[in-house]
Amino acid sequence: MTNNELPVYVEGYGKIIPFVEGLRKIEVTEEFSKKVYIANKTECKLVESIRTVLEKCKIRDGMTISFHHHLRDGDYIINMVMKEIADMGIKNLTIMPSSLQKIHEPLIDYIKCGVITRIYTSGMRGNLAKEISYNNILRNPVVFQTHGGRARAIENKEVKIDIAFIGAPACDKMGNMNGRAGKSAFGSIGYAMVDAKYADKVVAITDNLVEYPLDMPSIYQTDVDYVVLVDEIGDADKIATGATRMTQSETELRIARYAAEVLKETGYVKEGFSFQAGSGGASLAVIKFLKEYMKEKKIRGGFVSGGITSVLVELLEQNYFNALLDVQTFDAKSADSLNRNKNHIEMSASMYANPYNKGSVTNMLDIVVLSATEVDINFNVNVLTGSDGVIMGAQGGHPDTADGAKLRIITTPLVRKTIPIIRKKVTTIVTPGCNIDIVVTDKGIAVNPKRKDLIEKLKNSELPLMSIENLQLEAERTAGRIRQPEFVNEIVGIVEARDGSVIDIIKRVKKRNKINA
Amino acid sequence: MTNNELPVYVEGYGKIIPFVEGLRKIEVTEEFSKKVYIANKTECKLVESIRTVLEKCKIRDGMTISFHHHLRDGDYIINMVMKEIADMGIKNLTIMPSSLQKIHEPLIDYIKCGVITRIYTSGMRGNLAKEISYNNILRNPVVFQTHGGRARAIENKEVKIDIAFIGAPACDKMGNMNGRAGKSAFGSIGYAMVDAKYADKVVAITDNLVEYPLDMPSIYQTDVDYVVLVDEIGDADKIATGATRMTQSETELRIARYAAEVLKETGYVKEGFSFQAGSGGASLAVIKFLKEYMKEKKIRGGFVSGGITSVLVELLEQNYFNALLDVQTFDAKSADSLNRNKNHIEMSASMYANPYNKGSVTNMLDIVVLSATEVDINFNVNVLTGSDGVIMGAQGGHPDTADGAKLRIITTPLVRKTIPIIRKKVTTIVTPGCNIDIVVTDKGIAVNPKRKDLIEKLKNSELPLMSIENLQLEAERTAGRIRQPEFVNEIVGIVEARDGSVIDIIKRVKKRNKINA
Repeated sequence: MTNNELPVYVEGYGKIIPFVEGLRKIEVTEEFSKKVYIANKTECKLVESIRTVLEKCKIRDGMTISFHHHLRDGDYIINMVMKEIADMGIKNLTIMPSSLQKIHEPLIDYIKCGVITRIYTSGMRGNLAKEISYNNILRNPVVFQTHGGRARAIENKEVKIDIAFIGAPACDKMGNMNGRAGKSAFGSIGYAMVDAKYADKVVAITDNLVEYPLDMPSIYQTDVDYVVLVDEIGDADKIATGATRMTQSETELRIARYAAEVLKETGYVKEGFSFQAGSGGASLAVIKFLKEYMKEKKIRGGFVSGGITSVLVELLEQNYFNALLDVQTFDAKSADSLNRNKNHIEMSASMYANPYNKGSVTNMLDIVVLSATEVDINFNVNVLTGSDGVIMGAQGGHPDTADGAKLRIITTPLVRKTIPIIRKKVTTIVTPGCNIDIVVTDKGIAVNPKRKDLIEKLKNSELPLMSIENLQLEAERTAGRIRQPEFVNEIVGIVEARDGSVIDIIKRVKKRNKINA
Repeated sequence: MTNNELPVYVEGYGKIIPFVEGLRKIEVTEEFSKKVYIANKTECKLVESIRTVLEKCKIRDGMTISFHHHLRDGDYIINMVMKEIADMGIKNLTIMPSSLQKIHEPLIDYIKCGVITRIYTSGMRGNLAKEISYNNILRNPVVFQTHGGRARAIENKEVKIDIAFIGAPACDKMGNMNGRAGKSAFGSIGYAMVDAKYADKVVAITDNLVEYPLDMPSIYQTDVDYVVLVDEIGDADKIATGATRMTQSETELRIARYAAEVLKETGYVKEGFSFQAGSGGASLAVIKFLKEYMKEKKIRGGFVSGGITSVLVELLEQNYFNALLDVQTFDAKSADSLNRNKNHIEMSASMYANPYNKGSVTNMLDIVVLSATEVDINFNVNVLTGSDGVIMGAQGGHPDTADGAKLRIITTPLVRKTIPIIRKKVTTIVTPGCNIDIVVTDKGIAVNPKRKDLIEKLKNSELPLMSIENLQLEAERTAGRIRQPEFVNEIVGIVEARDGSVIDIIKRVKKRNKINA
């Protein structure tokens, strides 16, 4: 199933449990754990600085600390906290941000000088990712987890967080907090809800200290040790990726029309159906066409889940769907909706996607429409590395939704610039082909042969069906031969499936030219 | 400190850790635990009957099952579930309701025939309590816990719940639930929030199955195994105790006026102060007088916590306080307020009163005004047994708030009918005298000598201060000699302090006349 041949053991990671189709069976007697706390009634949780809170938390070499990425490229927290830690001379930390963005480039220095020696994350981008890919600057391989896999690892004590730092747009003196109010409001604080519940020490960092008690808390005082007031936790304007505009690209519009047609023909678009899609331009176009069809057929959906954009809020407010289940809010309009619409519901990353709880939302999905950086003839999907082998993306909820949903559709152009997207082998497997049903490109549509039911449903349609092998040949014909990246035999990344098994490894890329060139 | 001499070990309970002032120190490495669950994506959580759900949960002899008491004397769940269990022939169960009411009289039969052999509860009343007190029908002593002590015992795995049965006024097919909507709406579902988080199996029992997903869930699908739809989970009209009417009693009004005067003179009534009071007539009168003072002095309080009544909702809506923190809602008007007022905030029993989390609300209280069945010259308070020794009440949050608050006031008539309330020894110690500051009666006010600061503040007031010993003598003079109950040397109840140590034991009462006479 996996791509690169998996070693039995990876230095700095440990024993490799290879991915196999379906969820890994674990001992049901495994337990999560958290230290019991003896409340100090007289101690005030308000602490005057990051430095002081680090001292109070007794930060020391070798600890594991966590962060959330709700502020995305507008996040100031990670850099702020890491600077203080580095100044204190602490070394050998494991950091566990729910994801890393371009803004986190300062981490490069902290890695190089040994402050950070291990990273768990959903993804990384920009120069940090390049330094990892080309120069292998981190002492141990980066462990890439899915959003659900991260929640699972924390709840299942595979990773023990010593201190969780939680950027909070609204927080009271006791640590009741949410992402709903204040100048840095970002909406759902779903990723951090897991950290707060299981970390030994929990530090709220806020730029908006409200009167006690905060109303509508998402994280409660019972789990929070300290509260630090700072000037700014981030720039909420930088959350929106700008991807919420409808595409004008003829290629993307064609893909979207095909995908919408596929959705109709397969019969999954019916009263009460649930739906998730990415936030890219093509996804938005799919939603537009889907909406027209729902209107025509008078179909009202159940829930839409995942990262929530204003386009989805419109679907809710125009009554196309019953509810939004929001783990991460992508723009100000959606953050506002979370406050305004009762049926726009915040959920934790565990509720969203942890396969080992009593029912995650991903597992209830009827339809998911996903993007891809690469797809191969075994339907495996890459969203983590470029075709040059360099890390440039994130697993996110891609493998979680693909494992959970009943109909899993990939939409992608056949070729991007001169790069063939459908290929014999993906550079890195992130979502396994066993969890992908249909690949929709601008040049043709391939159905996974194991989904005979879908082939049966689509065979009389006017859709341009073809085999994945023919799609691959067509991609190669259009784009020309693939220039394969060359790798050094060093492992810079481990790709964990949502159940914690390993689906692929990422190797160091041999430099062809200077970084940042 | 304790009243009855405590044995070292009690059969059916185990080793006794005697209560000492302050919180018991525990190993901070103690951990709570919960089984990790492997989700079955295709299994539907909806189960057609209580019987079937019991089979699915694999109920068996010796298990521990839990319930909540939000529906109070209108609760149908306990009797409904226990009947099925008894019909199945299951024996030797431990039940852990957050409290027991008169309506739970049918438990007598299940105890007598060995279906139930152990009970953890906050309190019990009526014939069930009499059967325990007079006839010692339960195989093991009843363990009486405080509301905070119950949350602590569950989180700290002192008691492991195998199956939690949660009556839910609103629930969806996945088990997202709350107490806010539906014909049986009771408001806050705070007690059950702890059970849901830590029980191995969680069963929602609802009479109002709503479209998925429920908005404003208090308990999430991630923690719920099964959902059962029944005709009625209870009668919400029976939640209200009728105690929310202002007293007309001259005695109670005098006590209330004294108490309000004490509050003013001690200086604790100041901008932002927090407050809790019982729901009885005298407490309501205290609130009335307090309100007048706050209006006059333009003082706005912080939060009011605990069980919430319509009188407190008025305080909120008239802007006397900033927020209500609600663990249990006592009437329909308050349940409506929880939906309507953002600053009427639901909290779990752990957030309310567990001393071993990172900050409970009880520990933040400035003022608590509490009632008493008996008070003794060491300021110990009884609210659990009558002066005849018979169990007739509940610990509730009494010892939690008294341990947590800065000013702890008992209001009580000196004599009830012919029974002296202030006495040399209380029949049962529930709240220790070290946590009581002032006892306010209609005939005089006693300040705990260790609160020299309060004595100093009150000494120039016109309040009728006297020593607790003189109050006791006055009570004896008015009521005549106490007819002491006679006890059989059998332990029928263990009174646990909020930290899990034992503060008293309850012995079997020697019968003088027929039960129910």
